[in-house]
Amino acid sequence: MPRFEPIGVIHSCFREKFGIPRQPGLVSEARATLELLPPYNSPEAVRGLEGFSHLWLIFVFHGIPVGQWQPMVRPPRLGGNQRLGVFATRSPFRPNPIGLSVVQLERVEIHQGRVMLHLAGVDLLDGTPVLDIKPYVPYADRIPDATGGFAAEAPETAFVVEFSPSATAFCAAWPEGDLRALITQILRQDPRPAYERENTAPRRYGMKLYDFDLRWEMRGNTATVIDIIPNERKNQCADQSGDRSDR
Amino acid sequence: MPRFEPIGVIHSCFREKFGIPRQPGLVSEARATLELLPPYNSPEAVRGLEGFSHLWLIFVFHGIPVGQWQPMVRPPRLGGNQRLGVFATRSPFRPNPIGLSVVQLERVEIHQGRVMLHLAGVDLLDGTPVLDIKPYVPYADRIPDATGGFAAEAPETAFVVEFSPSATAFCAAWPEGDLRALITQILRQDPRPAYERENTAPRRYGMKLYDFDLRWEMRGNTATVIDIIPNERKNQCADQSGDRSDR
Repeated sequence: MPRFEPIGVIHSCFREKFGIPRQPGLVSEARATLELLPPYNSPEAVRGLEGFSHLWLIFVFHGIPVGQWQPMVRPPRLGGNQRLGVFATRSPFRPNPIGLSVVQLERVEIHQGRVMLHLAGVDLLDGTPVLDIKPYVPYADRIPDATGGFAAEAPETAFVVEFSPSATAFCAAWPEGDLRALITQILRQDPRPAYERENTAPRRYGMKLYDFDLRWEMRGNTATVIDIIPNERKNQCADQSGDRSDR
Repeated sequence: MPRFEPIGVIHSCFREKFGIPRQPGLVSEARATLELLPPYNSPEAVRGLEGFSHLWLIFVFHGIPVGQWQPMVRPPRLGGNQRLGVFATRSPFRPNPIGLSVVQLERVEIHQGRVMLHLAGVDLLDGTPVLDIKPYVPYADRIPDATGGFAAEAPETAFVVEFSPSATAFCAAWPEGDLRALITQILRQDPRPAYERENTAPRRYGMKLYDFDLRWEMRGNTATVIDIIPNERKNQCADQSGDRSDR
């Protein structure tokens, strides 16, 4: 068996596992950059890639200890109560902790010896090591008649997402993309653990996004963004080794 | 970086790299079995898998020496003349020799401690080590608006495939599936190297399939199956370490 090594690393808005969408494409505003690492950072290695709208990334679920898999897991999509075989799920707790995500390629940036792929619709934790990039080949990868077991339909909620005046002001001043749309999409996915979704009492949650803490309150079907608080600088790199057990 | 190990091995009709379809799904009659290896051969690990029509397999391009990659490759689809970045292709000569194929799941067989997945539409060499199995999740993996660079359309030829009387008789007596349909699909893919496709003089070719040698002649747009010759038994295991440089 060959020994693999990362060909690149993900720089993502998701700085902890909590709140990461459970599949790619669900949060189209979620952006990341894939930076190729030496000796793979050759502009030649990505020549022609810009002709593809989507890419497959094969990556490592980092921070998850190898060997901690079980034959059965409880997918969040089934409310966390029902057990399925690990190979019938996309759980990160697998015999080989390898992940597979299709992402949108927005552009390829080659600048001063760095090769950066700008991506959207990601479900990738910051710091994720990437093993391979492959083009999404529509005629082979898009299976019109595929049927999908328990996960045939995209998860949807009817959540209303509201913003406090201070959160609204923070989003309006944000320099990178439409932060309000990103937060709305994330909260509509309902990041809460399955066992808390039945809870009707108002409750507050928080997650790290970019270099800030996002705090919101769930009350029935309304998620209200209360606060967006920039992190202390010292915390910005501390959570890159976090795991991603939430899928 | 964790060290990965195979969770299963492929038993396939393709016993050498030559003639393997260049993507999965092109040859729907191409069948294989994925046998799970201990300690991963637990019936629990595949519980619920039968609810999915298609699976992703993440596997190793075995027999390809690690470290023998180049930043640019010449995809067969482009006639072998044009070079593209390795990450813009599905070439097996990659920094990490990891393959990704979507296959059809026909059934799950659990028998006397063995767990076997019966697959169709494969492009996998016999003996391929498999690192992971994931369900094909239609809402996430089927991207309606994906555009696909040089590989947007399935390759097609207008080949007529004919069978000699002896080849016809061999196919009629074949016990596993429709061998004539399998051979027809394989030859319609035109397994010849790109540089021989311009050749107009009749020429004979051969490939190993199951435990026999398939021999055909190309003459213009007609492929005629001349002979199907069962291998000597001693040869049956000799070619499992072959590589797969033909994609």
